[in-house]
Amino acid sequence: MIATMCRWLAYSGTPIRLEELLVKRDRSLIDQSLHARQGATTTNGDGFGVGWYVDGEPPRVYRSTHPAWNDRNLRELAAGVSSPLFFAHIRASTGTAIQETNTHPFRHGTWLWMHNGLIREFPRVRRELVLAVDDSLYPSIEGTTDSEAMFFLALTFGLEDDPVDAVERMVGFVEATGRRNGVEHPMQMTVATTDGRTVWAFRYSSEGDSRTLYFSTRMDSLKAMYPESAELAQLSDETRVVVSEPLGDLAGAWNEVPESHAGIVQPGADELRPFTPRA
Amino acid sequence: MIATMCRWLAYSGTPIRLEELLVKRDRSLIDQSLHARQGATTTNGDGFGVGWYVDGEPPRVYRSTHPAWNDRNLRELAAGVSSPLFFAHIRASTGTAIQETNTHPFRHGTWLWMHNGLIREFPRVRRELVLAVDDSLYPSIEGTTDSEAMFFLALTFGLEDDPVDAVERMVGFVEATGRRNGVEHPMQMTVATTDGRTVWAFRYSSEGDSRTLYFSTRMDSLKAMYPESAELAQLSDETRVVVSEPLGDLAGAWNEVPESHAGIVQPGADELRPFTPRA
Amino acid sequence: MIATMCRWLAYSGTPIRLEELLVKRDRSLIDQSLHARQGATTTNGDGFGVGWYVDGEPPRVYRSTHPAWNDRNLRELAAGVSSPLFFAHIRASTGTAIQETNTHPFRHGTWLWMHNGLIREFPRVRRELVLAVDDSLYPSIEGTTDSEAMFFLALTFGLEDDPVDAVERMVGFVEATGRRNGVEHPMQMTVATTDGRTVWAFRYSSEGDSRTLYFSTRMDSLKAMYPESAELAQLSDETRVVVSEPLGDLAGAWNEVPESHAGIVQPGADELRPFTPRA
Amino acid sequence: MIATMCRWLAYSGTPIRLEELLVKRDRSLIDQSLHARQGATTTNGDGFGVGWYVDGEPPRVYRSTHPAWNDRNLRELAAGVSSPLFFAHIRASTGTAIQETNTHPFRHGTWLWMHNGLIREFPRVRRELVLAVDDSLYPSIEGTTDSEAMFFLALTFGLEDDPVDAVERMVGFVEATGRRNGVEHPMQMTVATTDGRTVWAFRYSSEGDSRTLYFSTRMDSLKAMYPESAELAQLSDETRVVVSEPLGDLAGAWNEVPESHAGIVQPGADELRPFTPRA
Repeated sequence: MIATMCRWLAYSGTPIRLEELLVKRDRSLIDQSLHARQGATTTNGDGFGVGWYVDGEPPRVYRSTHPAWNDRNLRELAAGVSSPLFFAHIRASTGTAIQETNTHPFRHGTWLWMHNGLIREFPRVRRELVLAVDDSLYPSIEGTTDSEAMFFLALTFGLEDDPVDAVERMVGFVEATGRRNGVEHPMQMTVATTDGRTVWAFRYSSEGDSRTLYFSTRMDSLKAMYPESAELAQLSDETRVVVSEPLGDLAGAWNEVPESHAGIVQPGADELRPFTPRA
Repeated sequence: MIATMCRWLAYSGTPIRLEELLVKRDRSLIDQSLHARQGATTTNGDGFGVGWYVDGEPPRVYRSTHPAWNDRNLRELAAGVSSPLFFAHIRASTGTAIQETNTHPFRHGTWLWMHNGLIREFPRVRRELVLAVDDSLYPSIEGTTDSEAMFFLALTFGLEDDPVDAVERMVGFVEATGRRNGVEHPMQMTVATTDGRTVWAFRYSSEGDSRTLYFSTRMDSLKAMYPESAELAQLSDETRVVVSEPLGDLAGAWNEVPESHAGIVQPGADELRPFTPRA
Repeated sequence: MIATMCRWLAYSGTPIRLEELLVKRDRSLIDQSLHARQGATTTNGDGFGVGWYVDGEPPRVYRSTHPAWNDRNLRELAAGVSSPLFFAHIRASTGTAIQETNTHPFRHGTWLWMHNGLIREFPRVRRELVLAVDDSLYPSIEGTTDSEAMFFLALTFGLEDDPVDAVERMVGFVEATGRRNGVEHPMQMTVATTDGRTVWAFRYSSEGDSRTLYFSTRMDSLKAMYPESAELAQLSDETRVVVSEPLGDLAGAWNEVPESHAGIVQPGADELRPFTPRA
Repeated sequence: MIATMCRWLAYSGTPIRLEELLVKRDRSLIDQSLHARQGATTTNGDGFGVGWYVDGEPPRVYRSTHPAWNDRNLRELAAGVSSPLFFAHIRASTGTAIQETNTHPFRHGTWLWMHNGLIREFPRVRRELVLAVDDSLYPSIEGTTDSEAMFFLALTFGLEDDPVDAVERMVGFVEATGRRNGVEHPMQMTVATTDGRTVWAFRYSSEGDSRTLYFSTRMDSLKAMYPESAELAQLSDETRVVVSEPLGDLAGAWNEVPESHAGIVQPGADELRPFTPRA
């Protein structure tokens, strides 16, 4: 089975222009969209999305079905917008429709959500999963992806109150549903979600062989990676970048999130804790 | 409440180029998309779709989110394709996403479906309606419109075996569900569906005040409407055009389908019969 | 001949969110794109563009070929971006391709340019006009519109040094070229251009019967027009809005720029001066 | 310098569905668009075009700026259209705008034209080249690519009367213009053009190191390549496929067009002749 292989990036810290990490130089996320390296698919040309926070307002989302590398409006936006917290996602679809409503990040109220991976045999379990979404949330589902269904299930299980608990319940529910339908390894995911202040990142798969997930701990390494960037030179030590795959080649800049763990990027000390799905 | 107001056309008879009725002259469907006349909204710029049959194969569907009037590919297609049976639909959305999967006609196997009207307060009842769709059909739902939900409910109720009965059951179910949720007049519709041989057209609304629906009976009138068209001059007397609104100004060419009726365009004598929703 | 009829808006003054004038309420520019009132064409669904300045940087430009009214990204952008000077344009094409490079505003360096009107029989004179564009500017021409050709001719004639003089020369050249080719009334235009500090607006047509052009002088009127807007309530008296057609219905808020005149919106006293094409 | 690397295919012979060579199986042109093999760029996601002839009429052209691999309408079209002569092209841009008017094949009257390669330093010579286009043809130029300029120059030099002579003159003119502007190797091209009956294919570069160009001579090989295809099984021995790069892996099916040669696919014996640019 060919797995869909997306790429994503979450940034939290000193406000910078989106283009610093999305567009500039040949190590940016957009560059990765054209020259996939570790991807299961050869390119990420099936759409792009970015969500960003400014002035403590609800996030804005720009999503396009064009390849990120040839979307001029995205470059304009990335050059014109600065933000202390933003998500970006490039998509490689293996079947579901290429449309903005299937493009990450997904938004609900002040929350954003993005995902790399898949719910295996989603068409077979989709109905049961969607049926479990809370009545009041159901009308907000706009697309047809497994990723969006995961988001609304997590919201149903209390994402806004206790994110880690809600995601553990969501994954537990997806795994139970999948297995009841004869799917051996229902879940494969790296997920990032945020309320605009804290970023939660999850790495998990039913088979214990998850897609990669990294976060930057040492800003000095990141700065070293982009010596020519005045903006990056001023990043606070609180600044964090979480990525599905490392940007650039400075191994030192990136720490891998262990299998079945959740990372929490927040004011003060970050956290790394085991992640255990619960029925 | 502003109602969404689409326009559609169904053609059955002597094979002609799509452009004859979709593109040419200032009385075509595309012209109507730009210069809406009786519409509740001022224009139909939210997408366009055409579905056509050739050589007894499953229908092909071309759908675009661009306004029909400025879609060059549509003009190429309409000039290059001839068909004995085709559907065309121009959309005016009042909120659901502008994406191909929300664009009519909808297709399932050899069947096409298109709709003008709405299920009132659809967001409130959407979940109940969609969850009544048969398990085996559910994964084929790609969009988020009331129109597509109606199609899959009709399929669930046996559209492929007895179309009129299935649509009567579908409407009965939608009305029961709506009223149980406090919607006084749940359904407003003109619908056309086909299996590639017969065309079924329905005009119905819960309040007994339905959108218009017309069919051409006298080909000589239609020919008179387009005297310059060699193709139309050769139309058989079996040829029929069913439209949500008359094309052109020759009143004589069009017969209105009565309130709460279904029209059946088929080889031999056509039928017109009362339409009664059933729980 | 059906003239293309676009609509545009130029804003200069207290920084506000683009959505205040582009999106909100039923008197916005986007609303006009759907419900054209005085237009020669019934709708403006052939693309939209916005250009804005922030922090004294070169302008950013967002352009789309989708109708403004159903472009979600535009709404996100307009809600997320504040600017002290921005241009917005909605297009109604009568033939040239619907593509971003034919969408206003056009940008060169720190300058923006947008136009409502047309060069009559442009295909016949296009070659001669483009031939007159300076060698160093020619490669920057990306589209095929008369409006963009006017911009690059104006740049060739010194727009960046003396805007009014350059536009007078440009119009004089277009008229001379057109008449040499047997066009009686070559030019019909309202144009706005800016360097990010000053806005120049022009109203002129060869036949002395130009498209309309208005500017707001009395901010109190504008504020009265949008009593519910906290942002507009804080507009300085320096703030100006220049529009191809009045927004809303408060006649008092708008002054018409006289036939064959140029208006200059700048720090300190604005100017209104006669406009005379020169060969 | 990164060269733009497109891919194209020309088919002439027994009428078949476009999908046979464009969509089906993992050796199709669309598959190549996603998994570039010999490409100078890693993917061809910057648009797609197909032009086809039916019933001796002018060609129809479908062009899209979306990646070919995720364009559903293209699949519908390719499944629904059969043709005895069609061109297909997948684009990888290195800078010029991604828009339909920059997408191959280009059409003028009954002629089609597509190109893989580039005019080196085109921005520097574009003006001179375009201004050499005949007055009567100039208004038909819609895009901004070097490829379209080559087409209109070839038309200016008599493409419709003597294609090989006209292309030799076009290339001679481009080389003279480039060298006068200090470009050492102005031209790199494989080109295909047709009037709907004969296909002319050209392989040439100023440096004598041209992009690849192949044609199928032995239909039995092509049939062997797709044993499962009933349609291909019936191809006449007159049938030819000309490609920028071989489809599939059957070396035997493909003959390489030599450096600086033109191939002519026509009723009766095909021709292969030296190609010599002429001033």
